[in-house]
Amino acid sequence: MSKAPTSTAGQLPADRPSAVSRSVTKVLETVSDDAGQVTSVVRRTQLPSGLRIVTEQMAGARSSSIGVWVGVGSRDETARTHGASHFLEHVLFKGTSERSALDISIALDAVGGEFNAFTAKEYTCFHARVLADDLPLAIDVLGDMITDSVIAPHDVDAERDVILDEIAMHDDDPDDVVQNLLAALTWGPDSPLGRPIAGTTGSIEAMTPAQIRRFHAKHYVPANTVVSVAGALDHASVVRAVRKAFSRNEWLDVAEAPATPRALRSSRRPRVSAAQGQVLRPFEQVNLVVGREGLTRDDDRRYALAVLNTALGGGTSSRLFQEVREARGLAYSVYSFASQYADSGLVGVAAGCLPDRIDDVLTVVREQLVLIARDGITEDELARGKGQLVGGMILGLEDSGARMMRIGKNELIHGDLPGIDDIIARIDAVTTADVHEVAAEVFGRPELLAVVGPG
Amino acid sequence: MSKAPTSTAGQLPADRPSAVSRSVTKVLETVSDDAGQVTSVVRRTQLPSGLRIVTEQMAGARSSSIGVWVGVGSRDETARTHGASHFLEHVLFKGTSERSALDISIALDAVGGEFNAFTAKEYTCFHARVLADDLPLAIDVLGDMITDSVIAPHDVDAERDVILDEIAMHDDDPDDVVQNLLAALTWGPDSPLGRPIAGTTGSIEAMTPAQIRRFHAKHYVPANTVVSVAGALDHASVVRAVRKAFSRNEWLDVAEAPATPRALRSSRRPRVSAAQGQVLRPFEQVNLVVGREGLTRDDDRRYALAVLNTALGGGTSSRLFQEVREARGLAYSVYSFASQYADSGLVGVAAGCLPDRIDDVLTVVREQLVLIARDGITEDELARGKGQLVGGMILGLEDSGARMMRIGKNELIHGDLPGIDDIIARIDAVTTADVHEVAAEVFGRPELLAVVGPG
Repeated sequence: MSKAPTSTAGQLPADRPSAVSRSVTKVLETVSDDAGQVTSVVRRTQLPSGLRIVTEQMAGARSSSIGVWVGVGSRDETARTHGASHFLEHVLFKGTSERSALDISIALDAVGGEFNAFTAKEYTCFHARVLADDLPLAIDVLGDMITDSVIAPHDVDAERDVILDEIAMHDDDPDDVVQNLLAALTWGPDSPLGRPIAGTTGSIEAMTPAQIRRFHAKHYVPANTVVSVAGALDHASVVRAVRKAFSRNEWLDVAEAPATPRALRSSRRPRVSAAQGQVLRPFEQVNLVVGREGLTRDDDRRYALAVLNTALGGGTSSRLFQEVREARGLAYSVYSFASQYADSGLVGVAAGCLPDRIDDVLTVVREQLVLIARDGITEDELARGKGQLVGGMILGLEDSGARMMRIGKNELIHGDLPGIDDIIARIDAVTTADVHEVAAEVFGRPELLAVVGPG
Repeated sequence: MSKAPTSTAGQLPADRPSAVSRSVTKVLETVSDDAGQVTSVVRRTQLPSGLRIVTEQMAGARSSSIGVWVGVGSRDETARTHGASHFLEHVLFKGTSERSALDISIALDAVGGEFNAFTAKEYTCFHARVLADDLPLAIDVLGDMITDSVIAPHDVDAERDVILDEIAMHDDDPDDVVQNLLAALTWGPDSPLGRPIAGTTGSIEAMTPAQIRRFHAKHYVPANTVVSVAGALDHASVVRAVRKAFSRNEWLDVAEAPATPRALRSSRRPRVSAAQGQVLRPFEQVNLVVGREGLTRDDDRRYALAVLNTALGGGTSSRLFQEVREARGLAYSVYSFASQYADSGLVGVAAGCLPDRIDDVLTVVREQLVLIARDGITEDELARGKGQLVGGMILGLEDSGARMMRIGKNELIHGDLPGIDDIIARIDAVTTADVHEVAAEVFGRPELLAVVGPG
């Protein structure tokens, strides 16, 4: 583990990295192949401003992926700023002192790069994938957008309409509707974690340019930002390019310790109790989620939960797929999921079925949850679940985009990079008893049921 | 170009590859890096049965992707067998003489592999991505499914329910509904190309196990099948494994020349005339497509069309994105597309907007189509479009899955592999005059308009 020594106290968590007076660079991970050839090296540089730059140099790569991660999302919003993180993500594409919105688009379109952004409950990410030669351009454009955005009132208004369209689009997507409903049931419709990420029509219509500027000034600071790059690259060159691109507007001229997300970001989190909700929509299909509050992202039992999730509904050999779809043909899709946040989590089963099958699907799903909570899983399922997790993880880390996501998200959220070998060892260490224990606990919690479909 | 010499006549197209009396292997493409190191080699082996095996050995890869491509899709169906290709794709997962559906699932889930299939209008593809060590297992499972499926009546019935759910799910997806409507308007709702791939509730309810077996026996033959593998592999070992896996049921014991899709697969194709259609759905958003009949897949002007498509609506710097979304905030999403089939194609602009914006969106989109048909594109747009296409193509060919798709689809559809350098040269050769000519012709064709949304 590679945490910086603790040196700051007060309201900060104990493991918060300290401020540095000059750049500090560290090798976090080196991976070699069977022949002893180094295939990847992860390095981190922390600047005095608190900005962290993590890179993964991948042997043989021709492309580079870059992400700028900012530790702000919908759960950092109040009722008045609900949707501001996502609004801001949009507005930053609208232009800087140097570049118009069109210039930004042209710069990356012209090299065939993929350029996009997303906002989650706990962070915002801007990312691009380009051929190695175009990496300096991508870094410059992203630095420009983050540090020198104009945030002009007429751009805010034009983007407001685009976001209202996006909200309408989410309202037409059964998966989005049912997941938003589940979050509202779990944490309360007015809690930061329970609210939809994009905001509501009302909150977006009311948002002013001044609110968005203040939100930017507060959250888009170096200590709350991580730049991650993976692929064909040279670490020192990346650091130089980032320093230059992010030095606009004296953005880097502060000295701060990096912020890691606090364990409890909302001051009061409602206790989760059993809840049911239904949204009537004239869809052909019913979409439903049967959930439970899950584990937090630092919970050591999350590896056992991952194995449990895999055996329960993680593939076509899983219990749910076999019982609901293969044996009975009750639903086209059925799977389970587990998501983690700083101070809470969700575990659930999602299914889509015809309206007259909803009772049968619910019966079978609940039976399976009772069974797995009572008896756990078999040794066979344990072995298969581990193989599936480890194989899937290795397969999932082949491209530069996935590597960039891994190092960027871990640095922002944990201030640390769990080694791939460590993760494999922790998955390998899971026993059927561990899985049984977590299944009994999690599926013993109050049931949350969200249903979307025709009345 | 590497087409086999012509040796068969009759109703077959002139470039159909000939039958061979023993396996014939050929190197189709070798790519080296700047240092002269070979980074990939594409090889093809044709077996006497007509089965073709194409592999791309990628230096440094750790995973392998495999696809089995069968030249059958919804346009090979009659009104009575409408949906049979897709139904069959599902049923083949239900078990063989050796393996139950659960055994099939377990085999690939256990190694973390991604395993899936899709059916298009002109082909069906079963594919998997696994770590290199697990490639023999993946080949064996796929060979087993293709050649020795049980197609038991009770499995057909169970899967029928799953497909009815899938059709209902597509009916809830605005993009699917509008694209199906556009196809029906373009080629006629009762034509093979104009019908939805999955079939209709009626055709699926009526489909019998015997029909599905006959459909399988007719289309799933070696001469109509291509196996493509890309990643970490040895060509000779892949060929050996495929011969073994596909020799069940004496499936390979025939001698045939490979089939390439015929230029005209439906005997009568309706002429495309102007058409409008609307489907009322209580969605929040309107989804619309303004289209024209496009180019066939062998049309030499398709490179000019690709540049045109990019300038018109291929990225955030494109005319449509700038005019519709950036300048006016009229829609959340707007883009253009071009799809090609053996004897027809589609070119169109898709947008999603709030219901009260539909007239404004249509006005702006039509203006842009008139302008680009009248004046073509600028030299700047030409240069950017080429950069975007070439960069995007190179970026898109980094992983083994994309390489497997490229070599498999080209072998099945063209019986040939256009070299990457050839394609780049053809894109580079496009002039503004070429683009202008294709724009004037295509956008001068009768307008097709499909709209889905609230009434």
